[in-house]
Amino acid sequence: MITHTDIEQAAFRIQGRVRRTPILRLAADELGLGYDLTLKLELLQHAGSFKPRGAFNRILSAGAVPEAGVIAASGGNHGAAVAYAARALGLRAEIYIPALTPAAKRSRIESFGAMVVQGGATYNEALAACRVRQAETGALDVHAYDHSAVLAGQGTVAREIEQDAPELTDLLVATGGGGLIGGIAAWYQGRVRVIGVEPEGCPCLHDALAAGAPVASPVGGVAADSLGARQVGAVMFPIARNFVAEAVLVPDDAIIAARRLIWDRLRLIAEPGGAVALAALLCGAYVPKPGARVGVLLCGSNSGEIPA
Amino acid sequence: MITHTDIEQAAFRIQGRVRRTPILRLAADELGLGYDLTLKLELLQHAGSFKPRGAFNRILSAGAVPEAGVIAASGGNHGAAVAYAARALGLRAEIYIPALTPAAKRSRIESFGAMVVQGGATYNEALAACRVRQAETGALDVHAYDHSAVLAGQGTVAREIEQDAPELTDLLVATGGGGLIGGIAAWYQGRVRVIGVEPEGCPCLHDALAAGAPVASPVGGVAADSLGARQVGAVMFPIARNFVAEAVLVPDDAIIAARRLIWDRLRLIAEPGGAVALAALLCGAYVPKPGARVGVLLCGSNSGEIPA
Repeated sequence: MITHTDIEQAAFRIQGRVRRTPILRLAADELGLGYDLTLKLELLQHAGSFKPRGAFNRILSAGAVPEAGVIAASGGNHGAAVAYAARALGLRAEIYIPALTPAAKRSRIESFGAMVVQGGATYNEALAACRVRQAETGALDVHAYDHSAVLAGQGTVAREIEQDAPELTDLLVATGGGGLIGGIAAWYQGRVRVIGVEPEGCPCLHDALAAGAPVASPVGGVAADSLGARQVGAVMFPIARNFVAEAVLVPDDAIIAARRLIWDRLRLIAEPGGAVALAALLCGAYVPKPGARVGVLLCGSNSGEIPA
Repeated sequence: MITHTDIEQAAFRIQGRVRRTPILRLAADELGLGYDLTLKLELLQHAGSFKPRGAFNRILSAGAVPEAGVIAASGGNHGAAVAYAARALGLRAEIYIPALTPAAKRSRIESFGAMVVQGGATYNEALAACRVRQAETGALDVHAYDHSAVLAGQGTVAREIEQDAPELTDLLVATGGGGLIGGIAAWYQGRVRVIGVEPEGCPCLHDALAAGAPVASPVGGVAADSLGARQVGAVMFPIARNFVAEAVLVPDDAIIAARRLIWDRLRLIAEPGGAVALAALLCGAYVPKPGARVGVLLCGSNSGEIPA
């Protein structure tokens, strides 16, 4: 289990290295939902997603890092975060990405000075290639989600949300391998209804909760590069079973519509994975109870296009 | 003169109708400036710029609005704001835009239900056409900058900045016709160094301060659609002479580079006019004194492109 103390220690360890991202409050009529909404603008984090929180905490709590530096597999956002953290800490970084990683994310990782290797078609294949390489070099493995220090790091975003918006009763969180929602659920421990939102094409938390254990799920759709884990992590699952209220699914067209609305009304660029949590409200996949005070985490912005 | 009371009353009048936009604090190394920076993310305002503050205050302080509704001339952002405010208040709106208004801004204005008329090549020509039409219809004229209620409305952004970042010593503000910086300077009244930043292609505040009175200046360059007033307003000029510390100019290439950096490091989309204030720091047109605590207003986001 990840404790409050783990997350407090993570927050102390990474302070000054990650941005304290702002809250934006929307009135009930702004998006046509009929209730106020509180957005955590974590898409303004360094390297364009929440991932540096976990990456820094994992690396800084490792004690020592070998000469070979750090190594990670990633659909893109975690790789950018590890590369960003490695540069900040003066470490070498090697990042394994699958073929489905968008070109914009690959060049983002490279812009932070990391070596990028394309290994396999999906995240899971890139992870397998990464593990072979890690065994050769002895570099510190920074897993994208299935590590307690990564969860504790991601949990720091919930600590900030609770400080800045203590009134929330519901919080919607995009879910891939589950590092983010695992850290958030560990922070709230049921004090807030934490709702996992996944694309219909990547339903691994939904499937795991139904099966009572992490199970392999399909990986596909418009948000596969950021939410396309084959199954949720072993570290997050018991936390999710206890403290994630439910896991809902949204279709790709709702994700695309949510991105469009986020730009039109808010002038923010969310990548597909960064828009799924809001999509669940907009398309009715999650309907808050009357009187609920609803928060949404906008968690990533590493993609092109949208304006016009 | 615009007083504190005028701005407090404006804030009361428009509350709930405009967003309280967030502050984002950047560490000294984030943009390579060597000092901390506080950004006011006013580009996340309704309709994509600060302009609804002045538009709502002008309309709501008018007492009554004729059947014909409201009318305005605008390079785009003010028009979008007036259209947005008119829709919110159930009023008709007619907006005169010049030929240089980007297509994205025109469709933005239309998306709020306003009638759009293209009149002339530049803002000044659109304004002349707008005045002819206003005399015919009797609609309430909502000037883009040269009206005390507009200045008081824009001044509410400084009130928020002071509440959220009371430590600031310097604040950089993009300047076109001067409604925004006039309202801000009226709020601070010299307690903070307010620096106006203009593109070299649109230097009307710089020229007015040099001449000792508003004078006609050239209108050109990449930010002409948002900062392309021919001369600063009569209402703002005495305020600027007393309470604007200086007016600096930045070249177009610095504006373009600033937009790029705002996207790369912050994942925000600033239009050219929304990036000029930061450009002044990045290109060295303004160099804060050692120990200064510097704020920058990011004021507009109504343009396309950038990502990739």
